Amino acid sequence: MGRESFWKEDPSELLRAAPGLRLADVDPDGHPGIHGSKHDGATALKLGADILADLQELLFADSRLGDRRRILLVLQAMDSAGKGGIVKHVMGSVDPQGVALTAFKKPTEEELGHDFLWRVSKAVPGPGLIGVFDRSHYEDVLIGRVRQLAPPEEIERRYDAINGFERGLVAGGTTIIKVMLHISRDEQRKRLGDRLDRADKHWKFNPGDIDERERWDDYQRAYEVAFERTSTPEAPWYVVPANHKWYARLAVQHLLIDALEAMQLEWPKADFDVDEQRARLAAS
Amino acid sequence: MGRESFWKEDPSELLRAAPGLRLADVDPDGHPGIHGSKHDGATALKLGADILADLQELLFADSRLGDRRRILLVLQAMDSAGKGGIVKHVMGSVDPQGVALTAFKKPTEEELGHDFLWRVSKAVPGPGLIGVFDRSHYEDVLIGRVRQLAPPEEIERRYDAINGFERGLVAGGTTIIKVMLHISRDEQRKRLGDRLDRADKHWKFNPGDIDERERWDDYQRAYEVAFERTSTPEAPWYVVPANHKWYARLAVQHLLIDALEAMQLEWPKADFDVDEQRARLAAS
Repeated sequence: MGRESFWKEDPSELLRAAPGLRLADVDPDGHPGIHGSKHDGATALKLGADILADLQELLFADSRLGDRRRILLVLQAMDSAGKGGIVKHVMGSVDPQGVALTAFKKPTEEELGHDFLWRVSKAVPGPGLIGVFDRSHYEDVLIGRVRQLAPPEEIERRYDAINGFERGLVAGGTTIIKVMLHISRDEQRKRLGDRLDRADKHWKFNPGDIDERERWDDYQRAYEVAFERTSTPEAPWYVVPANHKWYARLAVQHLLIDALEAMQLEWPKADFDVDEQRARLAAS
Repeated sequence: MGRESFWKEDPSELLRAAPGLRLADVDPDGHPGIHGSKHDGATALKLGADILADLQELLFADSRLGDRRRILLVLQAMDSAGKGGIVKHVMGSVDPQGVALTAFKKPTEEELGHDFLWRVSKAVPGPGLIGVFDRSHYEDVLIGRVRQLAPPEEIERRYDAINGFERGLVAGGTTIIKVMLHISRDEQRKRLGDRLDRADKHWKFNPGDIDERERWDDYQRAYEVAFERTSTPEAPWYVVPANHKWYARLAVQHLLIDALEAMQLEWPKADFDVDEQRARLAAS
């Protein structure tokens, strides 16, 4: 847990999706690994922000001298669970030059003409970056499954295809962190209601969100199957209780910090003769 | 100047490249439009950060309901002038979802096989976004001219091609802000020296930076020609004194705020029946 003194217990282990996990057994109001309140959470998030920004700069610096490592954070959740807040409040602390964010929408006609991994393959982060997928290839086994957007055998095929795809990314130097933000059905009603009540939030509301909400249980089941089939040692899923936004942000921030600390990054050595360049500079 | 009370005079007008501008006449140590020091500058930047973030959210919200407007900030400068600092400290305050950053490096073989505008055309920001070009199509008339990377008649052709390209972007809803960060030759020596002196900055140093530094006067002249040929009413150039980093950041932040305030953005109206959706939500 390194420099983030506010964690009482490492949340990485507490949040990792265990085999056979049932979402009904995970308390969306929980805050595993930390005591405290919303106020403490905000203070902790600021501390973590500096740590994360420093580590990302190291990762970026190393990549300039050939290090191939990078991070891919996959964010999945029911509507209003707080993906956007993670991007804004966790990724927002990192130098924009170090972040590659892709928000995946309903596939276009062209995208539908290709394998489901085509569009995500093009969006994977380069060396030194933290890539963030706001929704991802998992939509193709979540809404894809719930709405039967493909034949059952194609949905089945996709789990293995995803594992193969992710293995390739890991082999190429990517640390993959897959996060499901877990809110309760009641909390979603409250949040969607808030969007309807505030004129400055109307743009965030989409009537289709209620259509999906009506399939809540199907989605929960589709997530459980996805965890079962694609939570691998090299690309694990984390289920992050998200009824408390402060907790979810802090937890995802920690997962990123943890991954970066595991890399044991150091400033890269100069690939030029420093004294020689000093002399050239003085003469210029 | 709206809500940014710290400006004594609107810097937009003060910084706009006037016809016939000579860089030797612009003091790189200056801070036009504002009194104060580095400390005041940091406080002001924080105030401006919230204003900028709020305005960008409005722009983004409007784009979700069909508004086509967007911003393109073009950053050009001699090495070490602070482009990266602008991205980190000015753009860093904006929700990452609202920023589309592209850093243009030495063109690849594939890029060289196309017209010079090919790669930039693919990187222009979508509606609702602030696009940032860290270097840009202007490299093709800057290093392109200084290093004679193309025949003189091709360099000549490019100024008009740029104006045509930018006119098209403006017609499509883009506000273009072109910034040259202006540092002195002595300040560059100091900054490059600092990179050589600090092991945690070596990765930012490139021996090629000194090669370009040796052509200082040629570059200054190439910038002047670029201003002369491409500073148009719809896509003006701004020359921002940048020996003081705090000033350059504040000035660029203001140019963005100014452009967004000129759009007179309002929260978009809901394109659904709010009461009907409330009833659906309650029943779900």
